[in-house]
Amino acid sequence: MSDAPLLQQLIEALRCLPGVGPKSATRMAFHILERDREGGRHLAGVLSLAVERIGNCSRCRTLTELEVCRLCANPQRDQGTLCVVENPTDVVALEQATSYDGLYFVLGGRLSPLDGIGPGELGMNELRERLLEGEVKEVILATTTTVEGEATAHYIAQMAGTLDCPVTRIAHGVPLGGELEYVDSGTLAHAFAGRQRV
Amino acid sequence: MSDAPLLQQLIEALRCLPGVGPKSATRMAFHILERDREGGRHLAGVLSLAVERIGNCSRCRTLTELEVCRLCANPQRDQGTLCVVENPTDVVALEQATSYDGLYFVLGGRLSPLDGIGPGELGMNELRERLLEGEVKEVILATTTTVEGEATAHYIAQMAGTLDCPVTRIAHGVPLGGELEYVDSGTLAHAFAGRQRV
Repeated sequence: MSDAPLLQQLIEALRCLPGVGPKSATRMAFHILERDREGGRHLAGVLSLAVERIGNCSRCRTLTELEVCRLCANPQRDQGTLCVVENPTDVVALEQATSYDGLYFVLGGRLSPLDGIGPGELGMNELRERLLEGEVKEVILATTTTVEGEATAHYIAQMAGTLDCPVTRIAHGVPLGGELEYVDSGTLAHAFAGRQRV
Repeated sequence: MSDAPLLQQLIEALRCLPGVGPKSATRMAFHILERDREGGRHLAGVLSLAVERIGNCSRCRTLTELEVCRLCANPQRDQGTLCVVENPTDVVALEQATSYDGLYFVLGGRLSPLDGIGPGELGMNELRERLLEGEVKEVILATTTTVEGEATAHYIAQMAGTLDCPVTRIAHGVPLGGELEYVDSGTLAHAFAGRQRV
């Protein structure tokens, strides 16, 4: 601990939060100290516990404090479909938006050899073993459409192909309610090329 | 502790921060867990220390972990001027914006009988004793221009008057660079009535 005033240290420490600059950090520090010490105490306790205990699920690699996360441990979920996403936030987003009731596999990034992120870092070996178990009947690719995301999807599709496991990819195109003139050209070209018969 | 997932608890706990809704809290939680555990650990430690140790300065009532805050303990500051403000944040704002080198007195609010905030809650007795010590040669009122702030200023001005201590009030008017058409009518009327010969 430095010997700066504790208030100053708190303001500095709050800046580790994304989107929090000096002004917001100051406002947060004063708010906690003047109006919500109980909330601050609770946050300190939960934050310290979370940082120590939350690790990765041994099945799907998402963030959890358990050995196997609640989704993987739920026998009600369809064990035959496996949706591959890049990050734990993607799991949350899909759970909130869709009625998907299968399982997930979290890569924790995308293939990016220049940054030293290869198949090993993304858990491809675990994914391969999961597919070898034979229970998965469909792999749904939900990686992003960046160059690295596409490469990652391609890699997994090939791997699943050699194991005779069907692979699908979520649809990409113009967002619902999106006006064509405001959609970026890449998306528009993709949507046009991927048009389907109605 | 509840038995909700720890991640969920963390997201909930982060919402005690002002201006943080469900989306920001989620982003913050994932950011800490995936990219900045060290920052999270540090924040938890400092926050817990701050909530336990930071109290009020026994001289000026501002927030500090010391018995007497650094400003009050600094013999270089002019002991003859005392600036009365509503909140500790006002001290920070004045310190950053002005070259004022006197001392402060933090009320911790404004007179508001309906909310049960009377002179006692605002430390008026301590302020009176401070003035009775006789070292203060000028009281500068920097309370807000709300009805309660004006009432508070009036109360202090009367009290200082009975003790023969000169009182000044910071100037209120059109902000520097403020275009007249965008200044609220209350400020404009105040500035017009308070015009000075040049």
